Amino acid sequence: MSNHFFSNKGPLKISKILKLLKLENNSIDQNKIVTDVKDLFNSSKTDITFLHSKKYKNLALETKASFCITTENLKNELPANCTPLIVENVLLSISLITSKFYPDSVNDNLDTTCINIDKTNFKDIVKFGHNVLVGKNISIGQNCSIGHNSIIEKNVVIGNNCAIGSNTIIRNTLIKDNVKILDNCVIGKHGFGFFPNKNINTRYPHIGAVIIEDNCEIGCSATIDRGSMSNTVIGKNTFLDNQIHIAHNVRIGKNSIIAGQVGIAGSSIIGENVRIGGQAGISGHLKIGNNVEIGGGSGVIKDVPDNSKVMGYPAKNFREFLKDNK
Amino acid sequence: MSNHFFSNKGPLKISKILKLLKLENNSIDQNKIVTDVKDLFNSSKTDITFLHSKKYKNLALETKASFCITTENLKNELPANCTPLIVENVLLSISLITSKFYPDSVNDNLDTTCINIDKTNFKDIVKFGHNVLVGKNISIGQNCSIGHNSIIEKNVVIGNNCAIGSNTIIRNTLIKDNVKILDNCVIGKHGFGFFPNKNINTRYPHIGAVIIEDNCEIGCSATIDRGSMSNTVIGKNTFLDNQIHIAHNVRIGKNSIIAGQVGIAGSSIIGENVRIGGQAGISGHLKIGNNVEIGGGSGVIKDVPDNSKVMGYPAKNFREFLKDNK
Amino acid sequence: MSNHFFSNKGPLKISKILKLLKLENNSIDQNKIVTDVKDLFNSSKTDITFLHSKKYKNLALETKASFCITTENLKNELPANCTPLIVENVLLSISLITSKFYPDSVNDNLDTTCINIDKTNFKDIVKFGHNVLVGKNISIGQNCSIGHNSIIEKNVVIGNNCAIGSNTIIRNTLIKDNVKILDNCVIGKHGFGFFPNKNINTRYPHIGAVIIEDNCEIGCSATIDRGSMSNTVIGKNTFLDNQIHIAHNVRIGKNSIIAGQVGIAGSSIIGENVRIGGQAGISGHLKIGNNVEIGGGSGVIKDVPDNSKVMGYPAKNFREFLKDNK
Repeated sequence: MSNHFFSNKGPLKISKILKLLKLENNSIDQNKIVTDVKDLFNSSKTDITFLHSKKYKNLALETKASFCITTENLKNELPANCTPLIVENVLLSISLITSKFYPDSVNDNLDTTCINIDKTNFKDIVKFGHNVLVGKNISIGQNCSIGHNSIIEKNVVIGNNCAIGSNTIIRNTLIKDNVKILDNCVIGKHGFGFFPNKNINTRYPHIGAVIIEDNCEIGCSATIDRGSMSNTVIGKNTFLDNQIHIAHNVRIGKNSIIAGQVGIAGSSIIGENVRIGGQAGISGHLKIGNNVEIGGGSGVIKDVPDNSKVMGYPAKNFREFLKDNK
Repeated sequence: MSNHFFSNKGPLKISKILKLLKLENNSIDQNKIVTDVKDLFNSSKTDITFLHSKKYKNLALETKASFCITTENLKNELPANCTPLIVENVLLSISLITSKFYPDSVNDNLDTTCINIDKTNFKDIVKFGHNVLVGKNISIGQNCSIGHNSIIEKNVVIGNNCAIGSNTIIRNTLIKDNVKILDNCVIGKHGFGFFPNKNINTRYPHIGAVIIEDNCEIGCSATIDRGSMSNTVIGKNTFLDNQIHIAHNVRIGKNSIIAGQVGIAGSSIIGENVRIGGQAGISGHLKIGNNVEIGGGSGVIKDVPDNSKVMGYPAKNFREFLKDNK
Repeated sequence: MSNHFFSNKGPLKISKILKLLKLENNSIDQNKIVTDVKDLFNSSKTDITFLHSKKYKNLALETKASFCITTENLKNELPANCTPLIVENVLLSISLITSKFYPDSVNDNLDTTCINIDKTNFKDIVKFGHNVLVGKNISIGQNCSIGHNSIIEKNVVIGNNCAIGSNTIIRNTLIKDNVKILDNCVIGKHGFGFFPNKNINTRYPHIGAVIIEDNCEIGCSATIDRGSMSNTVIGKNTFLDNQIHIAHNVRIGKNSIIAGQVGIAGSSIIGENVRIGGQAGISGHLKIGNNVEIGGGSGVIKDVPDNSKVMGYPAKNFREFLKDNK
């Protein structure tokens, strides 16, 4: 992914990174410069990356990064150009380093850059209600409207012909053309991601964005969290009903229809042309195929292949559901 | 239904309607005037209506409308006074015509008629918080209060002794006496109704209202959508807990009690004296009888007769639920 | 419990209380003074208390209250120092008396004490957004921030290092240190508690508070209701995801993690170190032990012992759930 919105406070010397990780490695040139933190695939020569699971060993073999945070067990999966930095907990370590490069991505502090839209140049191109606030690093296209009391916080791009409702809050979000976002939504805040600890949990950074493609509609009272290391994406012409929660890193394909009160947990990938009935829930890290239909109230806890129809909790093939419940 | 709030841009000549539907019918007097679009039962001689299912053939026989959008298969169900206009997709066609009569009912655009309540005559009869906005075509009774940041958009009637919370948005809604609506609600916006299309879905009009009868209480963060061709109704003395979603055209009887996070899908009819436990979901187009009890977490996918108690997903008779789960 | 926030309009003469309950009891000194209404355990000599279930007979034996509202059946469970006042419906009667002592606790009327924070001394110690309102009887610690359009209504204590999001409403709430409350929440309003009546339900008072302990995080669009006779408590370092509903009198232990769209019904007690998956629901008056894991989508309808893992609707032992669903 390209990082849309967070400002990179790097570069950091590798000596500084080693110190943060409480590592010593005298075989490394301590003055070497690290410019960014990326995943295995997107890294270039001056980046640091991470490998925490065997699942990614093919990607690891091809990485261009010069450094990789990993474990003793996985260090041999890396190519010669990439020096392993051995730690006990890869995710905690990469989170620590990411927080150093992107400190603004950890907490969603009060956006003090917000001012009333009528004090900005947007007042001439946007139709807006009372008490609308806009922050820094905003762009808004032609023929858009923003409802009363809404807050377009920092790092938001809005395309043409978009309508934002009232009492809605948006941050770190890229909105394409002809998108409608209704009232009372909160879009682009960090997800529910942290390392649990007795006494005080440690939040991890969310350097991703929310991307809402052309022609989408987002219903009232939605919450859509931005991604942690990747983006949260709502595909073209996908419509969401009221009170829907979309967690971090979720990707939904185009032409999908999602009814009220549905929840999709973190990192699940939903295909194109998917229909999800009201109150259904989809667990995290699943893959729902194209042209899938999920019945209302279902609890989906495993992958669903293309062109299938499921229902129930746990969700199963629709015919099986009917047979089991007649 | 009578249309409470949307302004009728008719009449239209039948020639214009035929053109919109891409029909030719030379046996019709092309100058004939059509004044409104209504359902079969409520139509009068100068109206156009529609028939899309055999279910309504008894109503069709009695309709007073002069024109009816219908299919080849159903045209013979109409009386002699009513000329059938044969189309392939009745709902898409009636939606198109309704949008012509009531163009304001399709999208809930930014209500630019809203001004601060302290610039209106309501300031003398209503107790209100900071930053309260009111739109056009509003009426408010005696002894009412409106909380901070709330927006009473256009087309709202509020009776006597009502309390509206803070951060709440209301439009196209008729509120009777002694009603409490708590904080963060969105009431009267269009429902989740559209014709799915690759690339760009087509919204259909919502010419109905929300009607909230005497003595009701609506909990925090509710969303109640207005009806499409009929109204969404919350019966007298019915109480809703927090985070409830009521879809378009739902009707709930009097003296019902609905716990937190319940969702009721479009066009379902709920009886009087019904109790619904937390997080239960009710599918669309169902009929739930009087004195029904629905257990928390249930998923109701078929009609429930009067005086019964159901639980489970799919919901079944309560005793059966207990037996199956001991 | 100690009553944090509601002002006691007592004392009342016992003659007045008898009259409210439509009782006559000439053996009582009619001039005797009653200073407060409390539960059996917390009552002192000048208080009135109540006993409505045999479950509490051990507590009843030890009560120091001089008067106790109870039933014919239970009157003999009281000690000699405590005069029983015999009624048909104990809860309705105690509610009536509580409403007399604490009339402000019945309805959450518009808080007219709210003024813009920049007109208060808080402007020098709090970092705040646009249009922030604060009511009476508020205290805010060091290094706190409050987002745009948020309303800190009357009776709120905020500790040090707390961040309140935007569009959030708080009342009758005690917030300790290092707490984050995100956007669009409603915290501290009365719960869904009333006596159902044909034509018009009767609300009962909510004299409790919401208490949020150190290091908690409350996600976007949460609703957390204050307690009726006791408090609603979120334990130290417990994190809540988005769109969660916590009903009145719920107590959640420390170090718990609750995912999106979970709902917890009234008076349930959740242990420490509990993990609850997305969309799970927990019925009222249950006891969930320490170190419990509840799978996403579960509907918990009975107590769960310490150290167990449950899933399903109704929730059962996790291994059983897997076996039944393979």
